[in-house]
Amino acid sequence: MRSYTEYLTLHLPSRTGFVNISEQVAECVRKSGVQEGLALVNSMHSTSSIFVSFDEPGLHEDFNRWLEGLAPFDNSGTRYLHNSRTGEPNADAHMKRQLMGRQVVLAITKGQLDFGPFEHVFYGEFDGRRPKRVLVKIIGE
Amino acid sequence: MRSYTEYLTLHLPSRTGFVNISEQVAECVRKSGVQEGLALVNSMHSTSSIFVSFDEPGLHEDFNRWLEGLAPFDNSGTRYLHNSRTGEPNADAHMKRQLMGRQVVLAITKGQLDFGPFEHVFYGEFDGRRPKRVLVKIIGE
Amino acid sequence: MRSYTEYLTLHLPSRTGFVNISEQVAECVRKSGVQEGLALVNSMHSTSSIFVSFDEPGLHEDFNRWLEGLAPFDNSGTRYLHNSRTGEPNADAHMKRQLMGRQVVLAITKGQLDFGPFEHVFYGEFDGRRPKRVLVKIIGE
Repeated sequence: MRSYTEYLTLHLPSRTGFVNISEQVAECVRKSGVQEGLALVNSMHSTSSIFVSFDEPGLHEDFNRWLEGLAPFDNSGTRYLHNSRTGEPNADAHMKRQLMGRQVVLAITKGQLDFGPFEHVFYGEFDGRRPKRVLVKIIGE
Repeated sequence: MRSYTEYLTLHLPSRTGFVNISEQVAECVRKSGVQEGLALVNSMHSTSSIFVSFDEPGLHEDFNRWLEGLAPFDNSGTRYLHNSRTGEPNADAHMKRQLMGRQVVLAITKGQLDFGPFEHVFYGEFDGRRPKRVLVKIIGE
Repeated sequence: MRSYTEYLTLHLPSRTGFVNISEQVAECVRKSGVQEGLALVNSMHSTSSIFVSFDEPGLHEDFNRWLEGLAPFDNSGTRYLHNSRTGEPNADAHMKRQLMGRQVVLAITKGQLDFGPFEHVFYGEFDGRRPKRVLVKIIGE
């Protein structure tokens, strides 16, 4: 069995955003030498997501609005206990990350990410403006 | 290490629906010959889900209504940028799929899917009426 | 390839709650002897979740309120078909579990769970007061 581990660093200048990291994950697969196996890609922070979706900017703006509706940023001190107790106004970011997911597991077939034609892997940031890490772990042979 | 790859095709006549694919996944496990390992099952499209739940039609109707409430179909052109920019009225389907999930990872123990007594694996369709693919990737020994 | 399987039992006295199971999962990793690999942790019931988040009680209360807002408990017989058809008033629990997730997949690096500094793995209960099982499946070498 082969295994490969890499840590990517993402540092978004804004509080929220989506970044297509498919090429970086594909490069990890190449470096691993794995022909048949699985690639785990996960955020190492609980206010960021990894997810697979379609690469269309309008959809990503729709995701942002939708997430803001379901888990609004609110630093009034009345909605979220977490914000008033810790002084970190990011309870909404923890919820948005639950909706979009912590991790994806991707198949590797014949040395390549085995994606459908419109699948891309994204990093979703909900509490940015600082460096954050993403783990890529590959096992297989 | 053994690995096994199979692509299932689902073609639902309606826009939305849930299909129990447990037996098809169990058949892949048998064909793989894997006794101890992991099975990844993922939708290869970003408007469909794979999830594990209880097989009860009332619950599935509840899921449909609930998803429609949280991410309504709306082709008015005012709610979703994706729909007006691409002409594809399926932004809601991308959101519903995020709520239900892209993939599951299932344990294989003693050559069988290691499920709780009421666990079944489902395909969730949110933009059907066309053939769509599901990937089953098994690794283990 | 090595593999390891363990079933944890959780029995919460209340209908809902979150339990940090990181130490129990870390103990499984030690027992497995795996140095490089993957650990799947999943609920074996469709009304409980496994998720990774920050260990802060205020945030967990925020999660509870937020989940109750998105998928309210309601045994009036009008909101959920599942409850009236089966007599089990837990349709909301199936939805809450979808929002928080069935499983996590964790990387094992140098014999340890490869977590970010604030990552912990939690069991989320949405229909408790009875024993429920969690599967830990580890593969690697």
